[in-house]
Amino acid sequence: MPKMHASPAAASDPVARRYGVAVGTGRATLSPTIELQLGHRSVRLFLTTPVTDDQVELIIAAAQSASQSSNLQVWSVVAVRNADRKRRISEAIGGQPYVADSSVFLVWVAGFRRAANIVHSRGAQVETLGYLENTLVTAVDSGIAAQNALLAAESLGLGGVFVGAVRSNPEALITELGLPEYTFPVFGVALGHPDPSEQAGIKPRLPRRAVLHHEQYDTTAWRETAAVYEERLGEYFAGHGKDGYSWADILTNRIGSIEGLHGRDSMRASLTDQGFASD
Amino acid sequence: MPKMHASPAAASDPVARRYGVAVGTGRATLSPTIELQLGHRSVRLFLTTPVTDDQVELIIAAAQSASQSSNLQVWSVVAVRNADRKRRISEAIGGQPYVADSSVFLVWVAGFRRAANIVHSRGAQVETLGYLENTLVTAVDSGIAAQNALLAAESLGLGGVFVGAVRSNPEALITELGLPEYTFPVFGVALGHPDPSEQAGIKPRLPRRAVLHHEQYDTTAWRETAAVYEERLGEYFAGHGKDGYSWADILTNRIGSIEGLHGRDSMRASLTDQGFASD
Repeated sequence: MPKMHASPAAASDPVARRYGVAVGTGRATLSPTIELQLGHRSVRLFLTTPVTDDQVELIIAAAQSASQSSNLQVWSVVAVRNADRKRRISEAIGGQPYVADSSVFLVWVAGFRRAANIVHSRGAQVETLGYLENTLVTAVDSGIAAQNALLAAESLGLGGVFVGAVRSNPEALITELGLPEYTFPVFGVALGHPDPSEQAGIKPRLPRRAVLHHEQYDTTAWRETAAVYEERLGEYFAGHGKDGYSWADILTNRIGSIEGLHGRDSMRASLTDQGFASD
Repeated sequence: MPKMHASPAAASDPVARRYGVAVGTGRATLSPTIELQLGHRSVRLFLTTPVTDDQVELIIAAAQSASQSSNLQVWSVVAVRNADRKRRISEAIGGQPYVADSSVFLVWVAGFRRAANIVHSRGAQVETLGYLENTLVTAVDSGIAAQNALLAAESLGLGGVFVGAVRSNPEALITELGLPEYTFPVFGVALGHPDPSEQAGIKPRLPRRAVLHHEQYDTTAWRETAAVYEERLGEYFAGHGKDGYSWADILTNRIGSIEGLHGRDSMRASLTDQGFASD
């Protein structure tokens, strides 16, 4: 019978809980914000209590406050509350109940439509939107902004989950939300009041030395940490009623073969249709 | 003489300060974390006081705690403290003093090297790394994680700035940091103790209705908000000693022509060299 926690220290130390084991990061003082970050768990089961419009507006203000490359502000959000629309989106991207049952489903719309409009309105041309650099800028800036949004929601007692599956059927989102040229749906964030019956745990992450390297990339750190993590994550899932979980299986299924992309092997074509990503 | 603030309300309300004008988002209660987010400003002038190793480790724990697509954990960080290396990197990407003068320069390394190693170690193949979807996943997840890192640093009284310019010369970073196949430097985060003499302001963002749409993408919101914002941002910069600032100029210079990409028009070739982004 696997044990639920690798160490008793894990119960009280938020850093240890995140790694699933006591680690030596105790000497820097935690801030309330870092405690909130360390305690993040994705919420996929929601009460019917609505997230208010005021809360959504505040969450978006937090998102807009994040850093943005050259202040370009090349993302927008479509907030979907309509029950039929949430259900249709859910059905189009995999049937996730947490999309249909969220109070509000925020679709992050990456892209340069607004910027292009402004440049065009001055009679200038826009020659760069086919370049991968611009696809990266809007994707990265969307991620930066959306993490501020989710953390802001969590700080208000709400919960949510990123939904990358919108990229499994971008055409459905483009039609449903009326997304114009130079935009694409990069991910969604389903938000609501957490249903306390969900029992979502704090999933252990890779040992820090796997991801934090010093001065140069460490090409050997993966080997020892992978074995340790495989065991630790297996224990975590066993403690949450799921035996036989393997991170290596997850990785192999996801990146090993085209099937693991769940239809997203046509992402390049989808983006090209929207005016992006040729060069 | 332009006025420094569009409204006296802006001085006390953190939401109003962020938009540069009083807005109607006062009814949802602010959390301390949201106040921190709303008060973000990029810091580019640092004291010589070092960020401690403990702080860096805690910041990385916060970054790892953020959502990750399917728990793939497809990013790493190379923390650069060596003064010569920071200077060489700065010189290679545009001469930014805040890269050379940061206490620690965190280079976010996107990519599937670790995951590929694990899959290969089981004798399986990795067939998906050429797909744009995977480039997007690692770029978005890097942005999500790094925003947690920067906000964590700010919550500790530190400051910093995202440095997208690492993409202006990825080859230099690849060589300097020894980045292997299936990785690329997606951005940096320069961190340090803020020099209070910098006087960095809270830059106004676009009116919320420009970026927050309801149920469907609003193709007309850009027009009225662009004019309002052009004026508001011009006032902000005039109040900070920079007359004649125009957001429309910034956009036109950045996306109008290839020169605005500052060499990043070869991003696709750079990524292909690293094993990415062909399909």
